[in-house]
Amino acid sequence: MQADPVSGLPPELASEAARVGEDVDALFDKLLAIPGDRRDRLYEAMRHAAIGGGKRMRPLLTVAACNLFAIDRDRALRVGTAIECIHVYSLIHDDLPCMDDDDLRRGKPTTHKAFDECTAVLAGDCLHDIAFTVLADEATHERPSVRAELIAALARASGPSGMAGGQMMDLVAEEEGPLDMDAITRLQQLKTGALIEFSVEAACIMAKLPEAERTPYRGYARNIGLAFQIADDLIDHSGDEEAAGKRVGKDAEAGKATFVSLMGEDAARQQADLLVEQAIEHLAKHGEEADLLRAIARYVVKRNH
Amino acid sequence: MQADPVSGLPPELASEAARVGEDVDALFDKLLAIPGDRRDRLYEAMRHAAIGGGKRMRPLLTVAACNLFAIDRDRALRVGTAIECIHVYSLIHDDLPCMDDDDLRRGKPTTHKAFDECTAVLAGDCLHDIAFTVLADEATHERPSVRAELIAALARASGPSGMAGGQMMDLVAEEEGPLDMDAITRLQQLKTGALIEFSVEAACIMAKLPEAERTPYRGYARNIGLAFQIADDLIDHSGDEEAAGKRVGKDAEAGKATFVSLMGEDAARQQADLLVEQAIEHLAKHGEEADLLRAIARYVVKRNH
Repeated sequence: MQADPVSGLPPELASEAARVGEDVDALFDKLLAIPGDRRDRLYEAMRHAAIGGGKRMRPLLTVAACNLFAIDRDRALRVGTAIECIHVYSLIHDDLPCMDDDDLRRGKPTTHKAFDECTAVLAGDCLHDIAFTVLADEATHERPSVRAELIAALARASGPSGMAGGQMMDLVAEEEGPLDMDAITRLQQLKTGALIEFSVEAACIMAKLPEAERTPYRGYARNIGLAFQIADDLIDHSGDEEAAGKRVGKDAEAGKATFVSLMGEDAARQQADLLVEQAIEHLAKHGEEADLLRAIARYVVKRNH
Repeated sequence: MQADPVSGLPPELASEAARVGEDVDALFDKLLAIPGDRRDRLYEAMRHAAIGGGKRMRPLLTVAACNLFAIDRDRALRVGTAIECIHVYSLIHDDLPCMDDDDLRRGKPTTHKAFDECTAVLAGDCLHDIAFTVLADEATHERPSVRAELIAALARASGPSGMAGGQMMDLVAEEEGPLDMDAITRLQQLKTGALIEFSVEAACIMAKLPEAERTPYRGYARNIGLAFQIADDLIDHSGDEEAAGKRVGKDAEAGKATFVSLMGEDAARQQADLLVEQAIEHLAKHGEEADLLRAIARYVVKRNH
């Protein structure tokens, strides 16, 4: 089959990614309904950041992982949207002048550019809360024990032992000088890996899979998390700003070590391919119900944005 | 009995407040143990903001409200500490240059002054996560349904329909001009009231009190929340920076309407006293198990910091 000429996605993945994108947008549209009072700007800022952009990689992963266990698509989407809330909040705060100071995100002005810094800080903080509101809500129809486990795991993945901890490591590395391979791997496992891993782990939690049976899915998630980051480094390295929808070449500019700067472009590409192969091997016992996860793994290193 | 000469607290409240302060500090000390890697600065920033400061008004309220239902002190303290995480995170973000731009908090340099802005943003974000980690943790020994209800209510109280929503209203009011009494009451009910209300509501959730029986406790919390804010306005108006431990006179400087600017100092004091009286009336059916809540209500308007 031919890849979609616009997105570069294989057709079976392109149609599912498009559906997930629409469904997540529809959920955000409900969650972020303009209240019609002095908080309108806050909600407009959240809508600006959350609706109609991004690859929706994390909700897509959750939907794909839920396929393995025949978990309802609506349940997967709610959880995926909660994860996307965390992802979007982190992008808003990351782009702030005191952080990465970026003007462009997903091809649009960043939230503090389109609104103002104060509104951007609050919009990030609010999406952070909404993630947990969505998971804790009785309307999810998850059992309370599942809701509590999802929340505990998501808070861990986004906090100091996950995403935010990785961001701190990144900040300190800028000051203390380039990292080695081990340190960069650890940093990326926290900074981008933890949330990607949770996107898959969430399906295991919803399926009430015993701890011992979760190992292959964690292996899959860890491998594609690293492959995803290497691909990101390659995109940043390539310098195609238009395709990326954000400023590129930042890492080299900041003198930061990346997988690409440490291994070289060719070895990084090979490493990413190997990680994808290993990710797919973790799904060996599954049939076609794992095809979407396999397609995502292959796409992760082929994408150009 | 005589009031404590240093804190101005009546002795029975002074000793309980001191104990809660120590217990919350001890919990923070464990939760924020320095990891010994490139995240150390992040943890030091969180410790700077969270440990050894503040009135611990919210955890004290949770402990006092748990007294009503004979709920274990340890359970109350864990939940109170989660609430304090949210309170401290909001102070860190509030003090940022793009927000209130404050240098002094609880008599110490604000987090972005003691560290840097980027670390302060991340430290706030992480305390935000830790609040939910603490509540979701199985080690709380709360039933999953109680954990899920606590989390849903806390996320609501801190997000766009609570604290952060109130902050946005405050920001917009600065630009659009002074508010009237109704608008200020609504703003304060969100900005400071929602979290104070949750501090009491949490006890009702842990006690599995049916919805219909929660009304008097919500009434108590709403009244002292407003009285607390009026007292805050009076402190800001009085201009005693040393006692307050933070910059004062900010509202007048910013041309903001407050309860004091709208009602005048005397009427504001009377209004606060009336709210306290009403708060105490809501506890009429309780005996001495409500004495601590009564003492807090009285203290709320007597404090000078």
